[in-house]
Amino acid sequence: MSTLFKRLRIHQVFGANTNVGKTILTTALVRASAQKGKNVFYLKPVSTGPMDDADDYHVNRYTTKHARWIDAECLFRYDEPVSPHLAVQMQKSGEGTPPSDETFVNSIANRIRTYARSTLDPSHMYLETAGGVHSPSLSGTSQADCYRPLFLPTILIGDSKLGGISSTISSYESLLLRGYIIDAVMLFHDDYYKNGEYLKKYFAERGVFLAIVDAPPPKLSEPWEDFTSTEKYYESITSSDGPNIVGSVVDHLDSCHVKRLEELESMPRRTLDSIWWPFVQHGLVKGEKDVTVIDSAYSDFFSVTNKDASSESSIVSPQYDGSASWWTQTVGHAHPSLTLAAARASGRYGHVMFPQAIHLPALNLAERLIQNGPGKGWASRAFFSDNGSTGMEVALKMALRAFSIRQKDHLKNEEKKELGILGLKGSYHGDTIGAMDACEEGVYTCEWHNAKGYWFDPPTVGIKDGEVNITVPASLASFSQSNSVQAESLSWVYDVEGRLQTPLARAYALYITRALEALKQRGGPKLAALVLEPLVMGAGGMLFVDPLFQRVLVDTVRGRRSGSSTKWSGLPVIFDEVFVGLHRIGMESTGPLLGVYPDISVNAKVLTGGLVPLAVTLTSQSIFEAFLSDNKAEALLHGHSYTAHAIGCEVANETLSLIDKLSASEDWLAAQASWAKSDGQPSPVWSLWDPNFITAISKLPQVKEAMTLGSVLAIKVQGASAGYTSQSAQTLLQSLNIASQDGQLSSAPGGAAFGIHFRTLGDVAYFMTSLNTTSTVIRSIEDRIWTTLNST
Amino acid sequence: MSTLFKRLRIHQVFGANTNVGKTILTTALVRASAQKGKNVFYLKPVSTGPMDDADDYHVNRYTTKHARWIDAECLFRYDEPVSPHLAVQMQKSGEGTPPSDETFVNSIANRIRTYARSTLDPSHMYLETAGGVHSPSLSGTSQADCYRPLFLPTILIGDSKLGGISSTISSYESLLLRGYIIDAVMLFHDDYYKNGEYLKKYFAERGVFLAIVDAPPPKLSEPWEDFTSTEKYYESITSSDGPNIVGSVVDHLDSCHVKRLEELESMPRRTLDSIWWPFVQHGLVKGEKDVTVIDSAYSDFFSVTNKDASSESSIVSPQYDGSASWWTQTVGHAHPSLTLAAARASGRYGHVMFPQAIHLPALNLAERLIQNGPGKGWASRAFFSDNGSTGMEVALKMALRAFSIRQKDHLKNEEKKELGILGLKGSYHGDTIGAMDACEEGVYTCEWHNAKGYWFDPPTVGIKDGEVNITVPASLASFSQSNSVQAESLSWVYDVEGRLQTPLARAYALYITRALEALKQRGGPKLAALVLEPLVMGAGGMLFVDPLFQRVLVDTVRGRRSGSSTKWSGLPVIFDEVFVGLHRIGMESTGPLLGVYPDISVNAKVLTGGLVPLAVTLTSQSIFEAFLSDNKAEALLHGHSYTAHAIGCEVANETLSLIDKLSASEDWLAAQASWAKSDGQPSPVWSLWDPNFITAISKLPQVKEAMTLGSVLAIKVQGASAGYTSQSAQTLLQSLNIASQDGQLSSAPGGAAFGIHFRTLGDVAYFMTSLNTTSTVIRSIEDRIWTTLNST
Repeated sequence: MSTLFKRLRIHQVFGANTNVGKTILTTALVRASAQKGKNVFYLKPVSTGPMDDADDYHVNRYTTKHARWIDAECLFRYDEPVSPHLAVQMQKSGEGTPPSDETFVNSIANRIRTYARSTLDPSHMYLETAGGVHSPSLSGTSQADCYRPLFLPTILIGDSKLGGISSTISSYESLLLRGYIIDAVMLFHDDYYKNGEYLKKYFAERGVFLAIVDAPPPKLSEPWEDFTSTEKYYESITSSDGPNIVGSVVDHLDSCHVKRLEELESMPRRTLDSIWWPFVQHGLVKGEKDVTVIDSAYSDFFSVTNKDASSESSIVSPQYDGSASWWTQTVGHAHPSLTLAAARASGRYGHVMFPQAIHLPALNLAERLIQNGPGKGWASRAFFSDNGSTGMEVALKMALRAFSIRQKDHLKNEEKKELGILGLKGSYHGDTIGAMDACEEGVYTCEWHNAKGYWFDPPTVGIKDGEVNITVPASLASFSQSNSVQAESLSWVYDVEGRLQTPLARAYALYITRALEALKQRGGPKLAALVLEPLVMGAGGMLFVDPLFQRVLVDTVRGRRSGSSTKWSGLPVIFDEVFVGLHRIGMESTGPLLGVYPDISVNAKVLTGGLVPLAVTLTSQSIFEAFLSDNKAEALLHGHSYTAHAIGCEVANETLSLIDKLSASEDWLAAQASWAKSDGQPSPVWSLWDPNFITAISKLPQVKEAMTLGSVLAIKVQGASAGYTSQSAQTLLQSLNIASQDGQLSSAPGGAAFGIHFRTLGDVAYFMTSLNTTSTVIRSIEDRIWTTLNST
Repeated sequence: MSTLFKRLRIHQVFGANTNVGKTILTTALVRASAQKGKNVFYLKPVSTGPMDDADDYHVNRYTTKHARWIDAECLFRYDEPVSPHLAVQMQKSGEGTPPSDETFVNSIANRIRTYARSTLDPSHMYLETAGGVHSPSLSGTSQADCYRPLFLPTILIGDSKLGGISSTISSYESLLLRGYIIDAVMLFHDDYYKNGEYLKKYFAERGVFLAIVDAPPPKLSEPWEDFTSTEKYYESITSSDGPNIVGSVVDHLDSCHVKRLEELESMPRRTLDSIWWPFVQHGLVKGEKDVTVIDSAYSDFFSVTNKDASSESSIVSPQYDGSASWWTQTVGHAHPSLTLAAARASGRYGHVMFPQAIHLPALNLAERLIQNGPGKGWASRAFFSDNGSTGMEVALKMALRAFSIRQKDHLKNEEKKELGILGLKGSYHGDTIGAMDACEEGVYTCEWHNAKGYWFDPPTVGIKDGEVNITVPASLASFSQSNSVQAESLSWVYDVEGRLQTPLARAYALYITRALEALKQRGGPKLAALVLEPLVMGAGGMLFVDPLFQRVLVDTVRGRRSGSSTKWSGLPVIFDEVFVGLHRIGMESTGPLLGVYPDISVNAKVLTGGLVPLAVTLTSQSIFEAFLSDNKAEALLHGHSYTAHAIGCEVANETLSLIDKLSASEDWLAAQASWAKSDGQPSPVWSLWDPNFITAISKLPQVKEAMTLGSVLAIKVQGASAGYTSQSAQTLLQSLNIASQDGQLSSAPGGAAFGIHFRTLGDVAYFMTSLNTTSTVIRSIEDRIWTTLNST
C-alpha cells in the first residue's frame, strides 16, 4: 500500500551507511518541523541496542521541550546493537519468531493510518530506518525492498566521511532501483573530505536537492554538559534566526509534497488533453473521473489516486491489477530481480545491432526456448521481434513463404497476395494489419483489414452448475448429434490422447473434412497455413476451445497423425501462444497436451515478465530452410530497430528462471493438488483459482458459464447482449473497482482496503493473477467476486 | 576498450567502502597466485597518502619474498590521504591539470598491453581501485564509470563491519548497473556482525561466489613485530597446507576466466545453430567467422571478439558502431543515465496497463512531444506503440479512417480495403504488412505484400566534385528541362521558403498535378493519404530528397499553401520521422524546414536513446476527432500489451533531456559553425561530419556522390550494379571492418586500434554517429574512410 495524505506529509529517512548522522539529522528535522508549527510524528520501526541509546529516546530528549506536538515511538525494540535480523535471532528464544515482512509493513501502515486520523492540522511524519539502505530488516529482507510497498518519499542521509561519496551514491542508486522518490539528500559538513561539495554538484545535475549541515559537537562525558552542547547544536542548525539550513530542508520537503499533490490532481486533465489511448472510445470517456492515475505499482497492486479521499484517508490506494496489465504480469510489478536484469544488460550492452551479430542474453534466451522451452522437441530457430503482433507477422511471412516454395511455380504473384489462413472464429493475433488479415472480419477492424482465409466455429469448454460442458456450435451439431456434450471432468476434457477414439473425435474429423472440401468446391481461398491460439482464444472473448477439436484440425490439415518428423506437411501450422504460453494457463506450451507440435510458434507477454516488449517466433528447421538460398532478396527481410534488444532478452532469461523456481513452489504444488483427478492422479490441467470457488460461482444464476486454467478465470455473465461491445459484464461487476470498506485488514501490502481493476470482453469478465500471486491474495479476490456476484 | 587475454587473466578489485581490507585481500590474492606458479602483476592506478603507506608498497613488502615473479606498480601518486579528485586539487599548483579520464584509462590500457606482451606464461593481474566503487577518480568521475571502458572482470571486497551488509549490496548493485561481470565477493570474517553469513546466502541466490577470509591481526607498534605478525597472517590464509581460502578464490577466478574464453569461442557455433537473424540471407553466411560476437559495448564502440588474436593481443577489440546500431544510438551504448532511467521506472511501476490509465513517464513524454517537441504547433495527441512499423500502422489506420469518414457513405467496404497511398519511390515504413502496403513493391517484399497507391520518382540531393547537385528523374526532366540542377550551396537547397518561387518549384507543381490527373484518368487507386519520409529516405538507400519537391507535393495534395489551420485538407499527410526525427539529421523535426506540418507523424529509434523499443504517433485534433463517437467499435482499436511501458517512456524523457543539453554543447556549436553560409549566417542544415571531408571524398573517382546531414554520412560508390542486393559498397570498403594496426593510439576508449562496423544499402555505404560522438572520434573515422577510399 502506497500512502499519501494531504494533511500528513510523510518522509522516510534512509542512511548511506550506519553512523552517518541519521538520528541527529532526523531529530533536527523534527525540531524544524515543530518550529514551523506542525504536529510531528517520529517513528522508528525497529530499534536495536540499549534503550537509553535508542533513536526515539534521543528524538524525545531533544525535541519535546521545543515542540508544540511531537509523538516519537518505536514499534520493535531489541537489545543488541547489531543489524535487526541478528538482533531478532539473538533474542529469539524468548520472543518467538520475528514478524514477517507483511506483518512488519502492516504495523507501520497502521501507525500511519492512526496518525493521519489523529491530526486535524498540517503535520509532518519522519520514519527513520535502521543502518544503511540495504541493512536487513527483522526478517532478513533488505530494508530498501521491505519498505517498498509503502512507497514513502525519501530523505537520504549521506556519508561525510572518507569513502562517503561512494556509499552515498551507491545508496542513492539502490533506492532509485526500487523507484523511490528521493526528495532530499542531507549530510554533514566536513572541511577536509569535502564530500558535500562533490555531492552537491552530483545531485544538482540529477535534480536532487542537497543540504549540507554543520556537524555535531563531539560527545562530552558529563551528561548535562553533553546535553547542553547538543541542545545548542540543534538550536544552531534549526534556529530561524540564522541560516536555518534544516528549516529550509523542511520547506523544500513541504514544497515537494505540495507539488506531488498538485501533479496527481492535474494528471487526469492533462491526460485527457494529450493522450490517445489504445482500444478506448474517447467519446465515451466522461471526464477526469474516468482516468486511472497510477502513481506506482508493486506486486499485484497498482497504487491509484482516490478522487474521493477524505483528508484522513490516503489519496492513493491499492487496486488489484486484475488483468495482469493486459496479460503480461508474471512475478508482479517492480520485481527487483527484473529491474536488476534490465539494468545489468543496459550497463553491459545498451542495445546492439543484431543482424549477423550475437550477444549472450539473446543467445542464452534462444537456446533456452528451443532446447528446453516451448520449442523443445521441434524448433531449431528463434527469430526475435517486438510484440505478439510483429511475432505473428513474422510467423505468417514464414508460413506463406514455406507454402509458396512448395507450390514451386504454380502460384502467380496475385495469388500469393490472396493466400488464405485456416483458423477459428474468435481468433485474434494482434493489431498490425497483416496479423489482422489472418482473422475474420469483426470488431477489431480497420479500413485496410482484408480477412484472408476460412474460420471454423469451434466447440468450447465451460462449467455451469458444477458440470463441465462442451458447447458444440450449430454447424457442427449435425455431426456430433448434440449441441452440448457433458464431460465427466475437466481432466477428462484435456486428456486429448484418450479422447482421440471417441465418437466426438470422429464427428470433428468428418465436419472438418467436409467443410474443407466444400470450401474447395466453391472456389474459396487457397489455404496456406493453419493458425491457432491453442486452448484459449483470449481477445476473442476468453473462449476455451475444446482441445480435441484443435488436435483433430491439426491432424486433418497435416494429412497424417503427427509422428516424430518435424518436416511440415499439408499446411504449416502456427501456434499463437502469445497469451497462453509460458505458464499463463498452467503449462509452458500447449504441444505436449495437444499431442502435436506446431511448425511455427510465437511467444511474447509473459516472456519478459511483464516489464518490456519482446517477442520470439520459433520455427522448425524445415520452415527455416524455405528461405535459404544464395540470393539476399529471398531472405526473411524483416527486422525492427531494437530486434533482440539486450534488456528484453536478459529480462526474459531472468523471468524464465524465476518461473522455474515457481514451478517447484508450495503454492503451485498445492494448487495442482487441489485440481488432481478424483483418484488423486495429477490432472493434465490445473489452476491457481480454487476448484470449489469455480463450482460455486458456476451455480449462480447471474453466471452463464465459468472456466479457468492456470492463472486465468473467465466468467461469462447472463444478459441480453453479447460480443465485444456488450457492457453486461462491466455493469454486473463494476462495484469491484471500489475498495471494500469492511474494516478488515486486506491482503494488499500494508493491509489497506483495495479495489479490483478488471477488464471485460463484452459479456465475459476475466481475472488474471501473476504466476507468483499468493493463495492468500487469490482467496481474497475470490471472496470479493463471490460477494459481488451475490449482491447483484 | 574492453580487454581480455588468453594468457593474462585480469581482475579489477573494487571495495564496498574505504578501509574494508581491499589492499590486504588483494595482497593475499597476489601471494596465492604466485604460489600457484603464476607471474603476477599488481597495478594501483592511483595512490593517495604517504608513500610508505601506499598499497603498492604493501603488496611489494608482503609478496616479493614469496614470489616467483611479481610486478607491483602505481601510475599516479598523490601525498594527501584523501579521495583522488581532492588529492589532485591539493597538489594541483605544482603539477598542472589532472589527467583526463581518457588519458587515465589509456595509461592503464597501455600498462595492460605491456604486461600481456611481456609474459609468455599464464599470468594473473590485479588492478586495485581506490576507496569505494563510486569514489571519484582523478578527474572527479566516479570510478565505476571511469573504469567502464576497460570492462574488466571484477572482485568486490565486501564490508564486514556494522552497516557493511548494506554497503556491500549497494556497491554490488552500482557495479551491476555498469554491466560489470562480478566473479567474486570477498570479505573478512566477523563473529559478531556476521555479515559474511548473510551475504553468503544473498550472493549464492544470485549465483555469485563469495569467500569469507579471516580478519588480519591488529597493527602492532613495533615495525618488525608488525611485519612478522602480518606475514604470519598472510601465510595462514594462503598456505596450501591449510584450507587455503584465498587459493580457492584464485582457482575460482581461473575457472571464470576459462569459462568466459570457452563461452566466447562457442558463441558463433551456437548462434549459427539457433538464431534466425533479421534481414540476413543465412544461405550466404559462410560460417563462424561471419558471426560478430559482441561481448559488451560502450560509447560508440562494440567490444567484439577477434578470431585471429595472438596470445599477446586482446581477444576482444573495439569496433566502431558505424550504423549507430540500426540508427538508434543517441548518446552511445551503456550510458549510465539511460540505465538509471530504465531502472527507476522499473522500480516504481514495472509495466502498467495503459487504456484509461496514466503514469507520469508517459504523460510527461506525451506533453514534451506535443507541446515542446516534434508536435509543437500542430499536434494534440500522442498514441504510443512499440516500434516504427507499428507506429506507422497506427498512422495509416488514423489517416485511412479520417479520409473514409469525410467520404461519408460514398465508399464501399471493398473500396476501403484498396484505398491508396501517395508517396515516393524508395519509401520504407517498416516490415509489418500494413506498413509495407504503403510502399511500392520492391525487395522488402513478402507473399501478402500488396502495394496500394502511387509513388513518385523524386529528385535527390548529392555532392559530387565539391558541387551540390539536384538529380532530377527522367519522368520529371521534361518539366524541369534538365536531368540535373546545380545548386549554389547546401544551405540554398534547404532554404525551402526561398525556393518556392523558382522555376524548379513550378516544374515540380506541374509535374505532380499532371501525374495525379493522369492517375485519376486511368482509374488508378483512390488516394487517401500522403505518406513521406521527410528529407531522407533511409532504408530505400539513404536518398536525400529535394525538400522543395516534398514541400510542393504537400501543398499540392492539400490544395492550399499551408496556413495556420491544423485541420487536415485534401489528403491527411503523414510524416514518417522514425529515422530522420529527433536530431538524427540535425533538426528535431522537419516541419519547420519544410514550412509545412504533417497531420500525423511518427517517431521511434532515437526516441529511446538506443536502448529499448518505443514509438509514438502524434496527431492533430482533426484526425483524433474522426474516431470520436459513442460507439466503442468506432474507436481506434489498436494496442500492444506493453503500450506506453514505463521504462520506454522514462528512458525517452531522459534521452530528450540529454539531447537538450547536447544542443548547447561546444561540439554541436562548432559543427554548426563549420557549416555556416559563406556570409557567416547559420545554415538551415548542418552536420557533425566535416564539410571539407565531404568535399574531398566527393572528388574521388570511386565516389559517385556523397551527402550528409546531422549524424548521417552517405557515400554512393561507382560500380556496375546498384540497388539493395548490390555488394559494391561493401566490397569497396570492407577493409574498414579490420582494426588499423598503424601503432598509433586510436580515439577508441583505451586507445586500442579499432575496426568500423558499417552497413551498406547496395551501392551506398552509410556511417552514422551518436548525437554525442566527439569530434575527435568523428575525425578519426573520417581519416579511416579517406585512407580506405584512397587505397582502393
